Amino acid sequence: MLLSGGLDSTTALALAKEQGFTPYALSFDYGQRNAVELTAARRVARELAVENHITSTIDLRVFGGSALTDDIEVPKGASLDEGGGNEFSVDYVPARNTIFLSFALAYAEVTGATDIFTGVNAGDYSGSPDHRPEYLDAYEAMANLGTKTGVSGGRRIRLHSPLIHMSDADIIRTGMRLDIDYALTISCYDPDPEGRACGACGACRPRLKGFADVGVADPAPYVAETP
Amino acid sequence: MLLSGGLDSTTALALAKEQGFTPYALSFDYGQRNAVELTAARRVARELAVENHITSTIDLRVFGGSALTDDIEVPKGASLDEGGGNEFSVDYVPARNTIFLSFALAYAEVTGATDIFTGVNAGDYSGSPDHRPEYLDAYEAMANLGTKTGVSGGRRIRLHSPLIHMSDADIIRTGMRLDIDYALTISCYDPDPEGRACGACGACRPRLKGFADVGVADPAPYVAETP
Repeated sequence: MLLSGGLDSTTALALAKEQGFTPYALSFDYGQRNAVELTAARRVARELAVENHITSTIDLRVFGGSALTDDIEVPKGASLDEGGGNEFSVDYVPARNTIFLSFALAYAEVTGATDIFTGVNAGDYSGSPDHRPEYLDAYEAMANLGTKTGVSGGRRIRLHSPLIHMSDADIIRTGMRLDIDYALTISCYDPDPEGRACGACGACRPRLKGFADVGVADPAPYVAETP
Repeated sequence: MLLSGGLDSTTALALAKEQGFTPYALSFDYGQRNAVELTAARRVARELAVENHITSTIDLRVFGGSALTDDIEVPKGASLDEGGGNEFSVDYVPARNTIFLSFALAYAEVTGATDIFTGVNAGDYSGSPDHRPEYLDAYEAMANLGTKTGVSGGRRIRLHSPLIHMSDADIIRTGMRLDIDYALTISCYDPDPEGRACGACGACRPRLKGFADVGVADPAPYVAETP
């Protein structure tokens, strides 16, 4: 289970548990500016009683190229409404999901797990090519050719992305059905030092819209009252 | 270019240069016991005048499961002749190539490169599923679906493994044609503190056999005279 401590991966974790899986969670400290998400991941892992939770330190900063790891400004508000077509968001971290899934694959090989869960959502805010179903299918095919599990007969690596076709509102409704306390989670790219979300970045805006669509208040802390 | 500082990746680097590529090299400090290979990688990168050389620190030890990172004995001599079929070597590090290639993919995205070279060799000593051509083909397909380069039209990520079907002797002959000084390289899993190869492990034995097949002495330093 790739666990960021955000709304999506927390909901995917609860779905994996509902399906009867015993979850092992993996988070990453990759020099992200929103390190408070690691605190959220630990809270979520404890609250949802995962079997084991590992935080792996990797240095993506040497690769540069993204607002999440560089010292450039996180886009907020109206500037998010620009772009489209083949333009990808500045929130895109090069090959990030490919790297994260590769660590998950190693963790699965070592624990004997065959099922990898992610909270990846095709329609989400990131505009990244590595959030698309065809990418995830290709990743699974590759994983089954490059691991002991995949080539030893009788078993198969399965990559589960149960939120892939859900809207943010669908995800929140699913989480409410599963009694998730979303106050534990954080999605913001630019939280303040106390871990309060900004309410305006490319992660906060769709999250708040999702809660608005469902008609409930987001229980997570925000810097100021949001409109 | 994935560059370990061993015989294979050094030869692949020289081939990439011969084909007219401007090489950027990537090495990993992943807690491997043979950290002297990082010294070799720096030597090779300097000698072969790569454009840039990055060493990325990643912690694979949290995943356990391999002689290269754990404190279990590196198999040597006769014990290497056992096994076969679907048994993979204890030298196998779970999903290692998948992780390494994923960092290379991120590095390619950032530098604008489209071509990734590895020294992977299908018949090599490791007995790992992630050294097979069908795995590499699947990796390339995945990479083209999960990156800006792959989905932005007109360009394509290409994964080159020019040694994939070569014997160790073929590789050494190729390197000699390209004037590689193999004294710069090290392949050993268990070198001594001065960086001299053991001559008996699962990396040294095929290397020495390759040189013997070609009929020349391996110029790299060994702990003792080898038979």
